[in-house]
Amino acid sequence: VRALEDIVGPRHVLTSAEDLAPYEVDWTGRFRGRASCVVRPGNTDEVAAVLAACREAGVAVVAQGGNTGLVGGGVPRGGEVVLSLRRLDSIGDVDLIARQVTAGAGVTIAAVEAAAARSGLHYAVDFGARDSATVGGSVATNAGGLHVMRYGGTREQLLGVEAVLGDGRRITRLDGLVKDNTGYHLSHLLCGSEGTLGVVTAARLRLVPRYDERTVALIGFASVVAAVDAATAWRRELEYLEAIELMLADGVELVCAAFDLAAPLATRWPVYVLVEAAAATDPSAALARAVEATVGVGDVAVAVDAGRRTSLWRYRDDHTLAINTLGPPHKLDVSLPLRHIAAFAEEVPHRVVSAAPVARTFLFGHLGDGNLHVNISGVAPDDESVDDVVLRFAVELGGSISAEHGIGIAKRQWLHLSRSPDEIDAMRSIKRALDPTGIMNPGVLL
Amino acid sequence: VRALEDIVGPRHVLTSAEDLAPYEVDWTGRFRGRASCVVRPGNTDEVAAVLAACREAGVAVVAQGGNTGLVGGGVPRGGEVVLSLRRLDSIGDVDLIARQVTAGAGVTIAAVEAAAARSGLHYAVDFGARDSATVGGSVATNAGGLHVMRYGGTREQLLGVEAVLGDGRRITRLDGLVKDNTGYHLSHLLCGSEGTLGVVTAARLRLVPRYDERTVALIGFASVVAAVDAATAWRRELEYLEAIELMLADGVELVCAAFDLAAPLATRWPVYVLVEAAAATDPSAALARAVEATVGVGDVAVAVDAGRRTSLWRYRDDHTLAINTLGPPHKLDVSLPLRHIAAFAEEVPHRVVSAAPVARTFLFGHLGDGNLHVNISGVAPDDESVDDVVLRFAVELGGSISAEHGIGIAKRQWLHLSRSPDEIDAMRSIKRALDPTGIMNPGVLL
Repeated sequence: VRALEDIVGPRHVLTSAEDLAPYEVDWTGRFRGRASCVVRPGNTDEVAAVLAACREAGVAVVAQGGNTGLVGGGVPRGGEVVLSLRRLDSIGDVDLIARQVTAGAGVTIAAVEAAAARSGLHYAVDFGARDSATVGGSVATNAGGLHVMRYGGTREQLLGVEAVLGDGRRITRLDGLVKDNTGYHLSHLLCGSEGTLGVVTAARLRLVPRYDERTVALIGFASVVAAVDAATAWRRELEYLEAIELMLADGVELVCAAFDLAAPLATRWPVYVLVEAAAATDPSAALARAVEATVGVGDVAVAVDAGRRTSLWRYRDDHTLAINTLGPPHKLDVSLPLRHIAAFAEEVPHRVVSAAPVARTFLFGHLGDGNLHVNISGVAPDDESVDDVVLRFAVELGGSISAEHGIGIAKRQWLHLSRSPDEIDAMRSIKRALDPTGIMNPGVLL
Repeated sequence: VRALEDIVGPRHVLTSAEDLAPYEVDWTGRFRGRASCVVRPGNTDEVAAVLAACREAGVAVVAQGGNTGLVGGGVPRGGEVVLSLRRLDSIGDVDLIARQVTAGAGVTIAAVEAAAARSGLHYAVDFGARDSATVGGSVATNAGGLHVMRYGGTREQLLGVEAVLGDGRRITRLDGLVKDNTGYHLSHLLCGSEGTLGVVTAARLRLVPRYDERTVALIGFASVVAAVDAATAWRRELEYLEAIELMLADGVELVCAAFDLAAPLATRWPVYVLVEAAAATDPSAALARAVEATVGVGDVAVAVDAGRRTSLWRYRDDHTLAINTLGPPHKLDVSLPLRHIAAFAEEVPHRVVSAAPVARTFLFGHLGDGNLHVNISGVAPDDESVDDVVLRFAVELGGSISAEHGIGIAKRQWLHLSRSPDEIDAMRSIKRALDPTGIMNPGVLL
């Protein structure tokens, strides 16, 4: 602690139980552990000095941004130093020619978007935790979100990082060059490494055009298979699709009950799909034509003005909060080949109930990317039998145990379902190569 | 050799000087070396067995695809086993729902495009060597090409690879999941690693919509700075831009002379820009409006039908062959921030002449990505003073020593200009972690 105080100043090393508390538990309340202290460096040199001090003292380090992770990768397990990056919150000028911006690790996703908007541009990554989640955390976890089908995830926006590796070496790739074939892409390797190789201190991010012409449609379907067929056709026919989101009747009804909303459509449908299109010229006619021509479409609600669009999005966005009203859920996010989404959605609630008879399964997610969020309520936090059946079933169908959230500590025991022994072994070799003393987030991922 | 014959059969191990010759020299004639033999495995198991045999014998391996590399990374230096991947030339069915295809390392880029076209889709990576260059080589070098500004390079098309690492571990990421946050992205690490970590045996590739409505315009400008300003405006205003290519008068005149073509425009301009737009609906009116509204535009030639488009593209495409008529050039491809392209283009010929008075410098390239190809004729192949001044000047302006071609052996001595000692050291650590015996393409990149 004294060494850390010498680096960042005493007021940026927190040690009292009261000060540590918010850093020691994730926002879902599922993951918690004791930190030896929290250190809040103010720049990259201080981050490097903190890592050097921890390496010397043989103390493990957990990097933390907005603490919005879902797999326990950003909270301590027992006695680690929590390295909070939130003070690295400066954001550079938007480069209008290159359409890029450099943001410190502690800048929130909402702040990146605000800076982009001021320049008439848009940051493509967006997700519910935008006001708390940080650039550093989003890079470390390769955050996905609502618009991956159009723009890709965080990795696809990431031109380069500034980072300090576990062994102290510095990476500085903030020059924003679109093409740069000069060896291994260390920035992309760090993206999604969940703090196990080093600490990202800044990122150079791509910005995209800002489209004000925007249409949202919410559409009822009789079945998931009809919804998947429709989504496949729209992806083929429609340019400018930003999102195709899937919801089921019980989730939508829970949202309506929790937030006192009217039902989204005149009729109750078993399946709902929210589609958003955005372009430089009004995409609503093309969207309407495509929806009308689609077999299996039930009722349709369309929103063009911003207020009404937000109202339709609420049915999807508020799933998380509505489900939380039933107690902390098990939150799984699986990736599936599109052709198996329907089979998964139909069967998975039965598999869950066979493992935990009182469980309630809520399914929603990013149909455009084959990414379903599986939220399970009514199961004790430490009962992992439901996680087990869900993840195994996803892999059985050719899917992945994590589309977006990562592995963290939550899914480490199932990593072997998605990655072969050779691959896990290769990852361990890379970990040893860049963090030979093993101080970076031990126990997470590997 | 006997061990290798046991693995792949005697007729797939080449040892005679005559058989080895085409594998021992690159197509530019600049890089050549002796191979101990050429081995041509027919599947991934054979690749793994070949690597195991070479590891055991302590013999280095140079993987080779279409042998169209430009930096000497795919030809032997002295006594290595050349591992030709060309027999891995099978291509899977196009997945129309996911819009993806799996291709063996030996499939040519043209064959990927042909398979995509048969399914009404398009493979986004395209470049001059398309008929010889292979999927394996394009992944190993993160090939760029003509459409990076719209779709990104090879890495952005790459969902995953099948590969054998230097230490024998196998990577198999061909499931095509768009979202998969389950640890380090080994496929992207291998992409651009130039055969120094392992051998890519297959790749899962993203395909994009096929646009038949296509317009090409060739435009004269009085200066590079005017061309850059125009390109910046078009990138902001026009959706669907596939390419913005820069040429200078002396290059265009060389092409006209070499292939007996008429001048592209009625007037001679110091600078020419070729723009291509493609979309589901005809983009020509929007392109014409944008070009008309641009300050500094000189004469314009527009082509809509395929034959005329090809004619306009020839002025750009044939630069390479036309320059080759002057003898083997020094070929450099640098990346620059867009705001410094004009300064670079104006100054670099003078710097070259100060190093080599008889040199002629030809500049052309992908203006949309800030990527200029610098071809220098009239300089002995082993006189690296011109390379030195060009690469140092690019880095001085915030650029990179390689936009597309990679480092290979050609630019290894300048790698330190683009990557810091820490980064090079981190790359070495990764190399040791995945190829501990150092058999994979030693001397290339690192």
